[in-house]
Amino acid sequence: MTSTRPPQKSDAPTQRRAPIAPDAESYCSVRGHTEALAARLGPEDQVVQSMPDASPTKWHRAHTTWFFEEFVLAEPVPHEVFDESFRYLFNSYYEAVGERQPRPQRGMITRPDVARVTEFRNHVDLSVLRALREGHLDARRLELVELGLHHEQQHQELLLMDALHLLSLNPTAPAYDDRDHGRPDGQSAPVATVAPPAAARQPGAPAGLFEFEGGLVEIGHLGAGFAYDNELPRHQVWLEPFALEDRLVTCGEWCEFIEDGGYQRPELWLSDGWHTVQSLRWDSPAYWSPLEDPAVSGARWQRYSLGGAAEVVPEEPVAHVSHYEADAFARWKGARLPSEAEWELAAVLHGQPRSAMAPDAAQFHGVLWQWTASAYLPYPGFSPEAGAVGEYNGKFMVNQQVLRGSSFATPAGHARSTYRNFFPAGSRWPFTGVRIAHDRH
Amino acid sequence: MTSTRPPQKSDAPTQRRAPIAPDAESYCSVRGHTEALAARLGPEDQVVQSMPDASPTKWHRAHTTWFFEEFVLAEPVPHEVFDESFRYLFNSYYEAVGERQPRPQRGMITRPDVARVTEFRNHVDLSVLRALREGHLDARRLELVELGLHHEQQHQELLLMDALHLLSLNPTAPAYDDRDHGRPDGQSAPVATVAPPAAARQPGAPAGLFEFEGGLVEIGHLGAGFAYDNELPRHQVWLEPFALEDRLVTCGEWCEFIEDGGYQRPELWLSDGWHTVQSLRWDSPAYWSPLEDPAVSGARWQRYSLGGAAEVVPEEPVAHVSHYEADAFARWKGARLPSEAEWELAAVLHGQPRSAMAPDAAQFHGVLWQWTASAYLPYPGFSPEAGAVGEYNGKFMVNQQVLRGSSFATPAGHARSTYRNFFPAGSRWPFTGVRIAHDRH
Amino acid sequence: MTSTRPPQKSDAPTQRRAPIAPDAESYCSVRGHTEALAARLGPEDQVVQSMPDASPTKWHRAHTTWFFEEFVLAEPVPHEVFDESFRYLFNSYYEAVGERQPRPQRGMITRPDVARVTEFRNHVDLSVLRALREGHLDARRLELVELGLHHEQQHQELLLMDALHLLSLNPTAPAYDDRDHGRPDGQSAPVATVAPPAAARQPGAPAGLFEFEGGLVEIGHLGAGFAYDNELPRHQVWLEPFALEDRLVTCGEWCEFIEDGGYQRPELWLSDGWHTVQSLRWDSPAYWSPLEDPAVSGARWQRYSLGGAAEVVPEEPVAHVSHYEADAFARWKGARLPSEAEWELAAVLHGQPRSAMAPDAAQFHGVLWQWTASAYLPYPGFSPEAGAVGEYNGKFMVNQQVLRGSSFATPAGHARSTYRNFFPAGSRWPFTGVRIAHDRH
Amino acid sequence: MTSTRPPQKSDAPTQRRAPIAPDAESYCSVRGHTEALAARLGPEDQVVQSMPDASPTKWHRAHTTWFFEEFVLAEPVPHEVFDESFRYLFNSYYEAVGERQPRPQRGMITRPDVARVTEFRNHVDLSVLRALREGHLDARRLELVELGLHHEQQHQELLLMDALHLLSLNPTAPAYDDRDHGRPDGQSAPVATVAPPAAARQPGAPAGLFEFEGGLVEIGHLGAGFAYDNELPRHQVWLEPFALEDRLVTCGEWCEFIEDGGYQRPELWLSDGWHTVQSLRWDSPAYWSPLEDPAVSGARWQRYSLGGAAEVVPEEPVAHVSHYEADAFARWKGARLPSEAEWELAAVLHGQPRSAMAPDAAQFHGVLWQWTASAYLPYPGFSPEAGAVGEYNGKFMVNQQVLRGSSFATPAGHARSTYRNFFPAGSRWPFTGVRIAHDRH
Repeated sequence: MTSTRPPQKSDAPTQRRAPIAPDAESYCSVRGHTEALAARLGPEDQVVQSMPDASPTKWHRAHTTWFFEEFVLAEPVPHEVFDESFRYLFNSYYEAVGERQPRPQRGMITRPDVARVTEFRNHVDLSVLRALREGHLDARRLELVELGLHHEQQHQELLLMDALHLLSLNPTAPAYDDRDHGRPDGQSAPVATVAPPAAARQPGAPAGLFEFEGGLVEIGHLGAGFAYDNELPRHQVWLEPFALEDRLVTCGEWCEFIEDGGYQRPELWLSDGWHTVQSLRWDSPAYWSPLEDPAVSGARWQRYSLGGAAEVVPEEPVAHVSHYEADAFARWKGARLPSEAEWELAAVLHGQPRSAMAPDAAQFHGVLWQWTASAYLPYPGFSPEAGAVGEYNGKFMVNQQVLRGSSFATPAGHARSTYRNFFPAGSRWPFTGVRIAHDRH
Repeated sequence: MTSTRPPQKSDAPTQRRAPIAPDAESYCSVRGHTEALAARLGPEDQVVQSMPDASPTKWHRAHTTWFFEEFVLAEPVPHEVFDESFRYLFNSYYEAVGERQPRPQRGMITRPDVARVTEFRNHVDLSVLRALREGHLDARRLELVELGLHHEQQHQELLLMDALHLLSLNPTAPAYDDRDHGRPDGQSAPVATVAPPAAARQPGAPAGLFEFEGGLVEIGHLGAGFAYDNELPRHQVWLEPFALEDRLVTCGEWCEFIEDGGYQRPELWLSDGWHTVQSLRWDSPAYWSPLEDPAVSGARWQRYSLGGAAEVVPEEPVAHVSHYEADAFARWKGARLPSEAEWELAAVLHGQPRSAMAPDAAQFHGVLWQWTASAYLPYPGFSPEAGAVGEYNGKFMVNQQVLRGSSFATPAGHARSTYRNFFPAGSRWPFTGVRIAHDRH
Repeated sequence: MTSTRPPQKSDAPTQRRAPIAPDAESYCSVRGHTEALAARLGPEDQVVQSMPDASPTKWHRAHTTWFFEEFVLAEPVPHEVFDESFRYLFNSYYEAVGERQPRPQRGMITRPDVARVTEFRNHVDLSVLRALREGHLDARRLELVELGLHHEQQHQELLLMDALHLLSLNPTAPAYDDRDHGRPDGQSAPVATVAPPAAARQPGAPAGLFEFEGGLVEIGHLGAGFAYDNELPRHQVWLEPFALEDRLVTCGEWCEFIEDGGYQRPELWLSDGWHTVQSLRWDSPAYWSPLEDPAVSGARWQRYSLGGAAEVVPEEPVAHVSHYEADAFARWKGARLPSEAEWELAAVLHGQPRSAMAPDAAQFHGVLWQWTASAYLPYPGFSPEAGAVGEYNGKFMVNQQVLRGSSFATPAGHARSTYRNFFPAGSRWPFTGVRIAHDRH
Repeated sequence: MTSTRPPQKSDAPTQRRAPIAPDAESYCSVRGHTEALAARLGPEDQVVQSMPDASPTKWHRAHTTWFFEEFVLAEPVPHEVFDESFRYLFNSYYEAVGERQPRPQRGMITRPDVARVTEFRNHVDLSVLRALREGHLDARRLELVELGLHHEQQHQELLLMDALHLLSLNPTAPAYDDRDHGRPDGQSAPVATVAPPAAARQPGAPAGLFEFEGGLVEIGHLGAGFAYDNELPRHQVWLEPFALEDRLVTCGEWCEFIEDGGYQRPELWLSDGWHTVQSLRWDSPAYWSPLEDPAVSGARWQRYSLGGAAEVVPEEPVAHVSHYEADAFARWKGARLPSEAEWELAAVLHGQPRSAMAPDAAQFHGVLWQWTASAYLPYPGFSPEAGAVGEYNGKFMVNQQVLRGSSFATPAGHARSTYRNFFPAGSRWPFTGVRIAHDRH
């Protein structure tokens, strides 16, 4: 165990070098990664919307492109608009930009087809790259290129979440890359996008603790690197003494929770959570299903992932649980979830956003997003970005819980210790996990 | 006007020659027509389900194939089952066959993809054709081939209905064959599938009447030709004197109904109909929308069809109205809808199921299905076919209204004057129209 | 068994003497019966609406009064309108009369309170009685008094249906007249309104058959007595040979159906029925619940009625089943439900609308309404009554099934063999039962 | 304007004397107030449930009584349980106590009737008073009496909220005390419960500001007086400099917001709020409706309250707005809502929980509850009370927003500056208002 002094300003995360710069190299790299992810999916996979909260792959590919056409390639940057109807079809929620296809109807847009979306991407890419090369973009536009690339990285993870949800509804339980099975394919998506990396697996030993004295600390983004507006301003927060576990909750621990009646004991649950458990008949994490015959390994559950169906492995971190479940589990443990300030403090000292594929040892990054006890609210003095892009974050600041960290599906370079992800408390389709906090009395 | 004696048994429709025989020629013709219809639609169009009542094109193609594999190619006919999972995926509602993909989730099956469904069709076709050629099919199996071909013809019309519904939700209002616009294509679907044929258009002159004395008449299928079980047994019905109009209600007449406040006057409507009008805010037929600027032609409405959007033409028969609307229109006219017996009597004498593309002059066939005043109930002495195919018709005999005739989208050879189509009274996505009946006092 | 010649016109039901005449005696008798039924219910019981299809007792009492004020006491009959707002509050569905309180919101009208509704009834009664006495009512108005009394009798049965539904939701399972338990009360409702009368109970012996040759028969109301417009015109129908059982299906038979898996076998059910069984998880008639410990009597079920909870008695007719269940039961028996024409033919010969309390031996009347295989449609040549009262019946002629007969809760004098009751096929809260029909080949 | 130093511990609210002591005097006073409030409502008003979130008056009266019987009068306190079924009927949400009537079905319990609930109250009162008098209650039980009285006071306000909602659905727009109009009645509820007191009205002058330097402050309950568990522990919070307006937002200001298109401009709204505005078609506060003819006063709106319908008065504080509306209004003003810590800090210095009827000048108390920007979350180190009463607060700590202060309907003695009320962000039926906060840069 380590006990830690309250952090000072100098502990703030240092931005070494912006991993995503508004240049042609970053642009091509990010845009190409989207296409690599989509290449595993056929036109049929790419067009269907599996629920109102999810979007078709094709829509993700077009919407991220729309962002550049709408915000970067506007007058006076030289560019011929690809198709006027796309402004309507592929706007997500930017009220200031105009009317748009209703979210639950995104899956009805079978035309333009996938091939035409590819043309759209190519068309916009040419314009952006030319504008970058020829210096048509002023500082504000360059910022918007940078924002657009971060935006696209977010959608890369959303694309995988949504693909997983869609494929999970298929009674044949296909793996994300089943489609190409047995066929030569030069465009394989990185292995890391299919399931938590091997490094995340660890023995069933009890978790250690990172301990903190609390006091007046600073959180929020600092410095010149990129951050979303919701990470600002950096500000002071008072913390009581606390400790965080040094790894995520495992599937083995979750099985104990299930076996101890965790899903049947109302006293463990928030009222909304208990209502959800009962009305949706949850008895285990999303994508888990009972094995009809207990496996040789003793496993009673299998879980579905982008890699297909497999037995639950006790050492792996548990994934696809809602905030309600995370909170109930923590209460069952006699503990609680961390606040986002506590999490950030610990991650700055003990975690490291992965630059490459490997998660850090303490699993702050690169494994699974981690539910916090914090509601998603503006930081003191928050003001959204000017213009339509100001709708990016601020307008969602109610009825959501903050998640911190990043997941195996988060693109390299996208993670930050100040990053504030958010979802409603009942969400299970993101790549979510659980880290436990303790009061120190 | 013609006044008509009660029909005798000898008036019953004569089956000249079964248009759909259980032979290789019919098989290839019917199966090929499905593929020609689908060829207009890309993989994206073929996989999406636009509402629970509709099915994806891909599903229609696979389900009609499943029918042959399940019922015709069962033991001892030599055949290797293509994929065991298809029994689950592509069963529609045959409880006796086993569990199946829930209807509202048909659009989630993105895999098997379209190409694999084509392989499935080819695989089954080879087996059926070999079985036909080599005489592996006994009389019952041959009947099932015949039934399967009629079943597939029904799905050909459903495929077009469902495609129209899907495309109508696309804000770009694509035409069914837009996709191939400008590309050479040897597989064009017949023009007749796109909109009512030109022959259906007629001047705005008032309709004439076919008059009947009523009395004891016979309806229902007679003779050796093919019929569904719900057309049997042929039986006697007592009719009061009546008259039917000699053509369908036109769009021009419908515009008068609208302008006379037809959609705002509760006294014209059945109670369920009025409730539907108000809750769904109907003010015109499905697929109609008001023109922002009245057209040069004076048209105030446009209608969307498989051919795309176009101004409403007063002389054309009105399409895509519900039973509720048809009934309210008839009441507005001081008239009523025909019973199915009245319709059948008139059609036997004055209509002719089209053998080719042309509708008959009195529009009994080949234009639009015609709502009747009859609820869909079993004929006296009805008994469903034995086995799982007995679920084909009988179990739907409640809460549905009978439609008679056939539409421009009904495949040649599929129409009969004894044919009983049925849909819930609020349905507007079938190719429906209206014929008016009058009492004679 | 009796075999019967086709009935002749002279078999038509003879109206001996209108049991409900538009005179003060009938008026007071009918109006007083409503109050006697309501007297068992406290103000709390009278105001609550238990589901959108049901209405509060208070509403029934006020609405039936509104009918007289609206249609009988209009100008020039001398009458001071009690309260203008009541026109809105207590109109049921008469569009021609004007706007009204939305049906699902009837239970929100806690004011006017029960006492004020009693004042309303008294006020209107005085005017009607004075108008009758002083001869202010012309022939049309007298017809409307008669119609109003029949209307009120219908609502007396609805009042009991709705009270039963409400009380059934009370976890304490109160009996309809629990409220007055132990208190002296001179206003007891007749015993016959609480449960099927003792005469309905019969041994478990197999049912006998009434047999008919079929042929051309007449049905519908004939003569000078009162009938609703939907019983007209009397008309001819062709029937095939058939037989009806001479009593209703019993609870004992229903238990056999349950034990034979009746509620789990889709092949027995109409498709809509099967969907309903599964989504509502029906496993027995409405108001039945399993006994935790089988009773000494061997009973496994108890049923809730206006008399409270009691063990199911095998000899009693089964009640509170939907059309779907009745139809499935008949199919399980290898039989079917009667058409309404078959039922009427048999009832004219073998049943007798009760003049007093006793049901007829064959249970055509005075026990339970009997589901028929007939959809509720207009008779040939039907025309609704003129004016707003024309909305009484005609506008409901879709998506409903006809029930024939009458129940123990139908007021004396209200039953007729030509009476056409109707409810949607899934309804279970009316006092419904089942009579079986057979084809004769 | 006043600028204020950061508060010190000594600024914490001093509990002079518990206004609600666990003695006979307090008990009778609180219990009697409930009855006085209910006396305005007839049995019909008391039994109906107007929406799932609301409860019938009768239920409030019985549930608050159940609380004493369940928690205070348990063994070994001498008491005969009134009715075993009441444990089920009138438990609200205490999972630890056992099964209960489902919340949306509370309005179905017409029996026990109102009179029997009065008997229940009397019966339990006798036992509690005897136990108090004879010293049967240990310290823990006395605490539970105190908790029970605070609990009952909460329900007194809920009773009025729910009665207002119910009566607002009555098309005759009755006032809460209409029922007794013109009848002598010695039990009038205090005038203060009908609408904001006259003192709340003020001229349309711009609001002044209370200004604060921020810094490290303490919030939460301190000392020996009563508080709910959610007000604990008292703890430190860091605040940036801020200012609060010295009165609530008025109806006149709200009319300006409406006229400036406030309800039509998405950029002003949180995303969930905008969705709510559109789907529920909000265009003004709850209980407001447009005047058909602008009034002589110029008013364009009327508002419904417990006093009935009346023109909107510009000087009055706006009531019955949701958090979404409060937040949008603040954004329209270029400002924001206060955090709960900011509010508490200001209220301790400038507000005063009313001991009698009069609100404080700055309207912190006794006028309307005030939405804050804070999500309802546990204070650091929060632990719920032991036992079933621990379900009182903690399990609701997600998806709710904190409101601070108290309203005209809050019983005297119930308000505290540390009090944390909470409702979902879309709630409009509580007595809610808006106070604006400003950043100080």
